[in-house]
Order: sequence, then C-alpha cells, then structure tokens
Amino acid sequence: MKISLENIEQLFPEGISEEEKAKVKTLFFKEMAIQMHEFYKGKIQVLPKAGLYGFNWFNVWYTPGVSSVSTAIRDQQDRSFDLSNRGNLVAVVSDSTRVLGDGDCGPSGGLGVMEGKAYLMKYLAGVDGIALCVDNRDENKKPSPDKIIDFVKMLQPSVGAVNLEDISQPDCYKVLDVLRRDCEIPVWHDDAQGTACVILAGLINALILAEKKMEDVKIVLFGAGASNTTVAKLLLLSGANPDNIVLFDSKGGLHKNRKDIKDSPKFYIKWELCQKTNPQCFNHIEDAMKGADVLISLSQPGPDTVKKDWVKSMNEKAIVFTCANPVPEIYPYAAKEAGAFIVATGRGDFPNQVNNSLGFPGILKGALLCKARQITDGMAIRAAESLAEFARQRDFHADKILPTMDELEVFAQVAADVAMQAVKEGVARTKVCFDQVYNTTLYDIKQTRKTIDLMMDNDIIKEPSADIIQDILNKVIKQVVR
Amino acid sequence: MKISLENIEQLFPEGISEEEKAKVKTLFFKEMAIQMHEFYKGKIQVLPKAGLYGFNWFNVWYTPGVSSVSTAIRDQQDRSFDLSNRGNLVAVVSDSTRVLGDGDCGPSGGLGVMEGKAYLMKYLAGVDGIALCVDNRDENKKPSPDKIIDFVKMLQPSVGAVNLEDISQPDCYKVLDVLRRDCEIPVWHDDAQGTACVILAGLINALILAEKKMEDVKIVLFGAGASNTTVAKLLLLSGANPDNIVLFDSKGGLHKNRKDIKDSPKFYIKWELCQKTNPQCFNHIEDAMKGADVLISLSQPGPDTVKKDWVKSMNEKAIVFTCANPVPEIYPYAAKEAGAFIVATGRGDFPNQVNNSLGFPGILKGALLCKARQITDGMAIRAAESLAEFARQRDFHADKILPTMDELEVFAQVAADVAMQAVKEGVARTKVCFDQVYNTTLYDIKQTRKTIDLMMDNDIIKEPSADIIQDILNKVIKQVVR
Repeated sequence: MKISLENIEQLFPEGISEEEKAKVKTLFFKEMAIQMHEFYKGKIQVLPKAGLYGFNWFNVWYTPGVSSVSTAIRDQQDRSFDLSNRGNLVAVVSDSTRVLGDGDCGPSGGLGVMEGKAYLMKYLAGVDGIALCVDNRDENKKPSPDKIIDFVKMLQPSVGAVNLEDISQPDCYKVLDVLRRDCEIPVWHDDAQGTACVILAGLINALILAEKKMEDVKIVLFGAGASNTTVAKLLLLSGANPDNIVLFDSKGGLHKNRKDIKDSPKFYIKWELCQKTNPQCFNHIEDAMKGADVLISLSQPGPDTVKKDWVKSMNEKAIVFTCANPVPEIYPYAAKEAGAFIVATGRGDFPNQVNNSLGFPGILKGALLCKARQITDGMAIRAAESLAEFARQRDFHADKILPTMDELEVFAQVAADVAMQAVKEGVARTKVCFDQVYNTTLYDIKQTRKTIDLMMDNDIIKEPSADIIQDILNKVIKQVVR
Repeated sequence: MKISLENIEQLFPEGISEEEKAKVKTLFFKEMAIQMHEFYKGKIQVLPKAGLYGFNWFNVWYTPGVSSVSTAIRDQQDRSFDLSNRGNLVAVVSDSTRVLGDGDCGPSGGLGVMEGKAYLMKYLAGVDGIALCVDNRDENKKPSPDKIIDFVKMLQPSVGAVNLEDISQPDCYKVLDVLRRDCEIPVWHDDAQGTACVILAGLINALILAEKKMEDVKIVLFGAGASNTTVAKLLLLSGANPDNIVLFDSKGGLHKNRKDIKDSPKFYIKWELCQKTNPQCFNHIEDAMKGADVLISLSQPGPDTVKKDWVKSMNEKAIVFTCANPVPEIYPYAAKEAGAFIVATGRGDFPNQVNNSLGFPGILKGALLCKARQITDGMAIRAAESLAEFARQRDFHADKILPTMDELEVFAQVAADVAMQAVKEGVARTKVCFDQVYNTTLYDIKQTRKTIDLMMDNDIIKEPSADIIQDILNKVIKQVVR
C-alpha cells in the first residue's frame, strides 16, 4: 500500500488510544508542514493569466500598448476592476499578533497562515489572494491598529477586497469597524465574521431538526471574543430575542452592571451587548445553562471546559456547538451522553465541522463578481442561509447539518446568493444575475483545479516521496506511543 | 496566412510610409491592449506552487500543521524567506503619479503597467511579482512621498524585494533614498537604476568597439531626470572623469552656478552633480557637444529634439544613445548620416534597444536567491558589466551592443553575477555559488514557460481569435492611411 495523507491511520500501531491517535495526527501534520513548506518554499506563486503568443505580445502587455489601459483607468478608476486582476484579487492582511493558536509571531509570522488562506481561496472558489503580513509595530514594538488601517486604505486601489486575519483583540474591532466605514471595497474579518456565518448556518439547520424557532430559543454564548460577539450580533439580526441571549467572558456574564467593560472604551462592542442582552444579569454559566436550548462555545480548548452537568441541565433537543481548537470544550460523545441532540465542533474528524473555509471563499467570490462596495451584515446572513439551504438539499440529518469542503458547488451557490443580496441592497457596482455568478464561480474553480492537476501531472509541482511521509509518521508515533 | 502579432507588417497596404507604419503599430498595440486586458480581465493571477494530493493536505497547508511554520518564523523571522513564498516575491510599488508616458493616472492608474512588470519578471526570470498601486494622496489630493515610504516599510515582512516604479520627480528621490537606507530588503527603482544599468552596459560595449576608454571620454547627458542623474552617478562610479561630464536639464547646463537647483532642497541629487561635473560651466548644449565622444539623451520625444548638427560636431566614432519613447530624440538613420558610429534607442524595431527588461528580472532574481539585504551600486554596476559581457560572447558589433530579451540565458547570467557581487560585498544573507544561482534561475524560467504553455495548450488561457486582431488592424490602418 502506498502511503498518503488519506490513509495514515491504517499505519497506526494496534491498540493505540484515541488520545494518542489525536496526538500523533497533530504532531504528524506539524512536522509535515515544516518539511513541506521548506520543500516547496512556500505555497503560492504568481503566474500569467493572459496568453503570450510570441515576444511581440509584450507590446500589448507592456509598453507601448498598455498606455491605453493606464489612460482608461485614469479617466474612470473603476475600470481597474475589469482591466487588471483587481476584480478577482483579495489581500489577506494580518499583523501576525494572534496567529491561529500561536499568539504574536512577529511581523512575518503569519505568512504561513495567510498563504494557506490564499491557497484555500483559489482552490475552493477561484479567488486570487495575496498574503500581506504588515509591520504595524510602533517605536516601542507595540502593534498599532491605526497603522494597519492606514496600510489597508493605501492598498485599496490595487485589490477588490480585503480579508483581515489574526489581529489580536481589541485592535481587531477598531480595524474592522473603521475600514468597513471608510473603504470603497469589502473588508471582511474572517476570524469573527467568517466563523459567525458558518455557526449561524449550522444553527439554522439544527433548529429546523430540533423543530424550534430562532425567536423562541434560549442561547448561551460561552466566550466573548471577536467571533462570539459577532455571532451574537448576527443572531440578533436573524431574529433571536435579546432577552434570551447570555454571553460569558472570563469574568462572568455580560450585562448592564459590568462596569469593567463599560470603562474599557476599546471593548465598545462588548458593552453594546452588555446593554442589550441578559436582562436577568446571569453571572454564572451554570445558572444560564439551565433550560437553555443552544450553547455556542468559542472558549478555551477542552476536553473539560464545558461540563457534562451543564449540558444535562439544558432543555430537551439541546444544540451544542463547542468550537475550540484543537480540542473541543467537550467531546461530542460526552455531550451526547449528557443528552445533547446535535453537536458541532471545529474538527474535521467529528461530524458537523464548523469550518470557516466553507464560508469565506464563496462570500468573497460573490462580492468580487458583483464588484461590491462592502459586505453588509445582510450579505453575511444570506451566506449563512445559503450554506444551510445547500446542506438541506443533500444528505441532511443531526450528524450532517453543514456542507463539507469537498462539495464543489457549495461555493458557487454561496457566491451567487451573496452577490444577489448585494445587488438587492444596492452595494453592487454591477448588476449581475444568479446564473452568471454561479456559472463563473464554478468555471473558475474547475479551471483552477485543472491547472493545478496539470502542474502536478507534468512534474512542475513535484510530489514529495512517500518515504518522507513514512519517516515522519514513524518518528511521531515513536514520540507518542512508548 | 494566419494573422499574428509577429506578421502584422505583412498586412500593411503598399506604399505606406515609415511614419504611417509607426503610427499604425502604436495605435494597433494600444487598441489590442485595451481589448485584450478586458478579454483576460488583467494579466496576472495567483496559483498554488505546492501540491494537493487529497483534501487532507489542507491539514498541512493550513491548520493544524501550519502552526509549526508560524512558530518557526516567530522564533527566527528570516525563516520566512524559505518557509513562504517571500523569498521569491517582489512587490512592484507605484503611486501612479508618472505612469510611463501618461503622467498622473490616479491611484489605480498604474495597475496595467505594474502587472506588466510582474508578467515580465515571471516570464523572463521566474520571479513572482505583485502589483501594488498605493493611494498616498493626502487631504488635498496631493501625493505624499512619506506615505509611500510608510507603506513599503509596513510591507517589508511579506516580500523579498521592492521594485519602485513610476513615481514622479522629485518624490522618487526621497522615496528611494530613505527606503534604501532603512529597509532590510532590496529596494530598486527601475525607472532610474534599471535604465541606468542597461545604458551603462551598452556604453561599456560601445566604448570597446570605438576603442575608447571610460576615463578619457567626454560625455554629454541630455535630460537630468531620475534616469539620467542615475546614469551620471553610475558613470562616475565606473571611472568616468567628472571634469568630462556635462548634464543638461530644461534650463541649461548643470554646474555650480545653478542657484535655482541649489535653492530646491528636494533636488539634492541634481545639486550634487552640479558641484561635481561641468567645471567649464557649459550652458548651451551646442557648446558641450563639440568634440564630445558620447551623448546620452533621456529627454523629450523626437524626432528633432537632438539636432543633426550637434551630432556632426562630436568627436570621431561618436556614440549616441537617444532613448526617448515612443520616438527617439533623433532617428538612428539621421544620427548615422551625421557621423555617429553607434546609435542606441529605446525602440525594439531599431538595432541596439536599451530595454529595462534586460536588467531588472535578473538583478532581482539574483538579489532574491542570495537573500540580499540591499542592491548596492556595486551590484548594479556588476549587472551592467554582466549584460555587456554576455553580449560580447554572442553576435557582437556596432548594431548589436546589447543582449536581446529572447536570449534566455542572459537573465541567469545577470542573476548569478549580481548574487556573487552581493556575497562579495557582504550584503547577502546566504552564501551562494555562481552555478547554484545560474541553474536555479534557468530552471525557474523553464518551469514558468512550461506552465504557461500548458495553460495555453489546454485552453485554460484562451487564444483570442485572429478575427479580433484583423479587425483592430483594419480599423487603425483606416484611421492612419487616408
């Protein structure tokens, strides 16, 4: 049997525990990552998208011909969306201060993640992404939100949209809000908005299966970071009753008596939620969980961050989203034992993965194809509904409430629905129709994959030898299993 | 006969004059450019350079595996050159205030040119380029050199080098000098340094053919913009005698009595040259040209900007570089009639094209492959010598003093020579050897072209129909020939 990343589990020694398996896999992927990134020297590149049929074509692509492109854009700046790659280009921008689970990694530290995001964008939705890690440190080495805001404003003329990523709290709030207000192109914060979108999609479907209604259910949000505060915002916009929502941060429940939050102007978004939600002023999660219908946890890695007893005290047909990585706040089997009806996590090896990658590629593609000036909350909610609708049209049950990343058409569907919403709300520069966006997205995805396959088949992208994979696997198994 | 860009001249009507031909060609390329840029929607894209052998590979390219890349860079920022595409990535940065011949084209106006530059970089030397047109306009819509400086400093962690382009005078001086001083990556100003490099290469070879020596010849520089002032600087560093150099701007000769220049601090580079050169204080070009050996003109488009009589008054075996675009300051035939021994222009349809594209791709590739901290003047001069040496090893005579763009190996040669110079001067982060750089560059060029060919052969990049080309040609012929 030839070893590949699809069958590594078959090579695990007999009798290895589930916990050891998880450890081996994490270590294996990390060691693979460092060796493979070095092998390929990164993972995205720039290539022409326009033909060259002899050197005379440089007279078209460069001087003297290109002059007509410069003057056309000079006379109408928006022509840049059609006459350059701007119309399909997203800058993935970070200051690397909160790189996934690894905290502040220094100015260049987020490049691996940002290139990963660009890879996903292109592969999943045919969107071009450039990875820009910005040095926004001031004289005292302190990251400045104002500098990243300036950077993005200056960058605007070159890209069709901006995807903010891995900026630490509370800077990320200011950066997003100022840029959404001031920019003429969509600015998306995937950690917050992307996660919230996919969670909302999952919740819509979970409620359908539980035969409950958004306006009736009691919802506990455990964790009040950028993601969960954005979830709260989208829930409220989607009809949830603010009186039935309670958020918790590390210091307790969010409510109108939280002076510490009121006194921290940078946390203005949390203060808004303090005033709107939790009228009973719950301070303890145990109290709020009693009779709750939904738990959405974006908190510390588990497995014991969320207690079995809390889940036991929930209403019947309880919906439990525990999305911490790499280990969910409670394992799905434990939540189910405690009576949960539907469980979702961030992990791909359990059912119902809440995965940002389901959302942002299609959302950005849709925004680009209608030349949107922004991605409104309405577009984000439409994306969530689109994801939910797509899942319902397929294999749909309590262990499959969301689409999966290998369902090619989901990205075209989301793109088209998002673009239609943009047109409806008047934020699209171009009136497009559903089929146009759907078909273009599907075409672009297929062309991208065909290109990658051609590069792999023709040894332009070289396949790493199976020996390397085998060696790494053996090494990490030895480390974990003694 | 199938029409292509290589044979359009064969379709010109009989009896068409040389001037009409030139007009038809310029209009044809401009009309082609606007239609083809719209057809392809720009000309560069982003694609993976790393393989995907099943969806599990996203665990390597993204979370959880990528964490090891983030922490490795966190612990040693320079690892970003090998673990991401940074090591092969150049940002082509402009504020679009002087887009080739078209002046200020607004914030997005340079995108066509910058993408063209990125296309050339990749095709000619396997370097990835991203096109970044920066909005550095202040509240009064005035472009600010400080803002573009800030932008590039913030951008540094993501790219291996920066290529400045099409920034108007005198801002370009400050931007380049500050960034060269403050950045830890090479910052190259192609309009100035690139042009100067290729001119120096041509002059080295022209002097060999004329059997004259750099330290003896009298040199007149007509035009004192960013390019010609940089030519002057490189000439002085290459052994030319400052007493034998005279520069002219629109107000006359540069010399120590030019109070207007002394009083304009932003033109500090011109003032330096005023103090160093032209001790006789020539004020009129006619006087300076008498007995001169070399004329380097980067001035207004001709054909009568440089007079036949001026060339007639030069020393024997006169060398005349008239590089204005689209029409040289004097046509080569006219300069030759006036006694010039060697003539070079910016045009590809005359012998001895002074073409930036010969220089920057190899120079940047060489700087990237040794992870240079800067491109020193020594490296620029080495690049010029390398170009000159390459030309001498081929078909070498008065009408072929420079390599041409279709000579694949020239870019590998320049890259390797530049990298060796960087190592010698101690500005390389990595000690590389000549063959390593030469072979890597050649390999990367060939892989790039193979990829583009595969995309064209498999209809991923679609060929525009011959009818379009024919229609455009017919249209412009009708406009020009009546």
